[in-house]
Amino acid sequence: MAALIPFLDENLRARLCAAVDGKAKPPGSLGRVEDIAVRLGLIQNRLDPKVDRVLALVFAADHGLTEEGVSAYSASVTAAMVDLFLAGRATVNAFAQAAGVDVRVVDAGVAADLPEHPGLVGAKIRHGTRNACRTAALTADEVERALARGEALAVRAATEGYDAIVLGEMGIGNTATSALVMHRLLPAALDDCIGQGTGHDEAGMARKRDALERASGRSAAIEPLEVLREFGGLEIAMMAGAAIGAAATRRVILADGFISTTAALVAARLRPAVLDYCLFAHRSAEKGHDLLLRGLGAEPILDLGMRLGEGTGAVLAVPVLRAAARLLTDVAALADVVGGA
Amino acid sequence: MAALIPFLDENLRARLCAAVDGKAKPPGSLGRVEDIAVRLGLIQNRLDPKVDRVLALVFAADHGLTEEGVSAYSASVTAAMVDLFLAGRATVNAFAQAAGVDVRVVDAGVAADLPEHPGLVGAKIRHGTRNACRTAALTADEVERALARGEALAVRAATEGYDAIVLGEMGIGNTATSALVMHRLLPAALDDCIGQGTGHDEAGMARKRDALERASGRSAAIEPLEVLREFGGLEIAMMAGAAIGAAATRRVILADGFISTTAALVAARLRPAVLDYCLFAHRSAEKGHDLLLRGLGAEPILDLGMRLGEGTGAVLAVPVLRAAARLLTDVAALADVVGGA
Repeated sequence: MAALIPFLDENLRARLCAAVDGKAKPPGSLGRVEDIAVRLGLIQNRLDPKVDRVLALVFAADHGLTEEGVSAYSASVTAAMVDLFLAGRATVNAFAQAAGVDVRVVDAGVAADLPEHPGLVGAKIRHGTRNACRTAALTADEVERALARGEALAVRAATEGYDAIVLGEMGIGNTATSALVMHRLLPAALDDCIGQGTGHDEAGMARKRDALERASGRSAAIEPLEVLREFGGLEIAMMAGAAIGAAATRRVILADGFISTTAALVAARLRPAVLDYCLFAHRSAEKGHDLLLRGLGAEPILDLGMRLGEGTGAVLAVPVLRAAARLLTDVAALADVVGGA
Repeated sequence: MAALIPFLDENLRARLCAAVDGKAKPPGSLGRVEDIAVRLGLIQNRLDPKVDRVLALVFAADHGLTEEGVSAYSASVTAAMVDLFLAGRATVNAFAQAAGVDVRVVDAGVAADLPEHPGLVGAKIRHGTRNACRTAALTADEVERALARGEALAVRAATEGYDAIVLGEMGIGNTATSALVMHRLLPAALDDCIGQGTGHDEAGMARKRDALERASGRSAAIEPLEVLREFGGLEIAMMAGAAIGAAATRRVILADGFISTTAALVAARLRPAVLDYCLFAHRSAEKGHDLLLRGLGAEPILDLGMRLGEGTGAVLAVPVLRAAARLLTDVAALADVVGGA
């Protein structure tokens, strides 16, 4: 975690705003798209940003908390979904195909042994986290390795020529882990961080709340590395590392939903400058996400009531980023059209 | 205007909903995208809808009302923007390039003579509308021809293999005309329909309001053909016709902002079934648009504070439609993954 994250060049901001305002359109008439265009320029430190090649990194991991019934699904679904990602038949694959985004799956800590596959990066730190109701989910070394591995993966993507990185994830139980991490790092009342995840009836929600209260009661951690150690999860730590690596290489980070944004929160608490490089793709229907976004001062791009994860919401926002970049590079200046009139 | 618009097959709806619910994801977890997927299937009358080829029809026309100072821009800007569309250097071109959408410009009634160009459809009904403050903007015959021409253009696009049609426009003064049309057809108080358009200071807004009150006072028309005749505009009539033609050929209609949605309103008042085929891309920052959308019972897909027109907001929503279609065609069923468990 030695990465230095460059500050944005605030002198460039004025030039980018002038370029946007000077385009052949009424000033301000593209609303948020104009803000995104300026941000892309600042992130890439150029007047002609591009969002051509985008990689969705989908980090998969399991959570010991599932032993407590925090999810409506069995932990084995994590590995089954990884199979589906690799077969190209999950929602993120379909959406990525529609949006022209590449997908790379990362085994950050799936509880099962996964077969080798050209689309799968084996980065397993351990077979799932420990049950945070009983003990620390991870060791300090495991946390450090997950962060470093995530950072390396983002740097590799930058080297390969990707302009933007989508942070996607899959992990049964990970809304539960994210709730604990958000609770401590935002911070916010635990109950405000707990949502229905993949779907829970009333009894399921009571079970989830009870388990998270017990896990929370076990540790008073509030420092990011310590919070990751106590509660996990491996995909969250690895996504946080990826955010840091992307920021260090001036790549756009596109956060997805609740878990992905929690990873951005972790990254921001470790390296505040990371937030300058983050765009937040959508407002998830998962309960804690809106509060989390507000806590980060983030205004999401889309609001479609999605709550699937996998990076699906972020992939859907990629075309908006591409359009924003092209506003700067492809649209004529008003002065070229009307001779400065 | 002989087009018959097929009713949606409500029996198919149940099958589409079951297909969406049966995908390898928690039920409901894709929010609005699931609703859009079902709607696309109903529109195309198939379980495997597609939004591969999309055409943005950008209808350009001028408005006699500009003589009253209803716009902050000179009417000559309409023709200048058509030139920019044809040069591929306007915002809609850049966004369409980013989203994989084709653009076709239609001269519905620009006040200038435009040169021939392979990207321009010459469909000029007349050189701009008459000044609605003084007289009827169009004759009944002009209205009829504009509607028929729009319908034919959409049918032609369907024949060419386009799956969806974006209704875009350019016309200095057309937020003023749209305000009058919305006022009469929604209906709504005139003042609630008047916004800043491309940008007005306080004096400009007062001028716009005054002109629209005078135009409104000249005629009590409330029937759609009569409203178009009294107030115009040619691009609005032609877009309404295009919506009818697209619906008649079971093509998806993607409305853009205030003017485009006003055209959808006209089409809906002429042929209520058109609305079944319309998706509303975004909530424009133009004042009347939110009320107009609510009046049509429409929930827009995006909300980015845009108010440019040209079809730019609709083009940005195309990737969401594509993703929704691919949910039905590309994502595995849960039963295939977990053996029905």
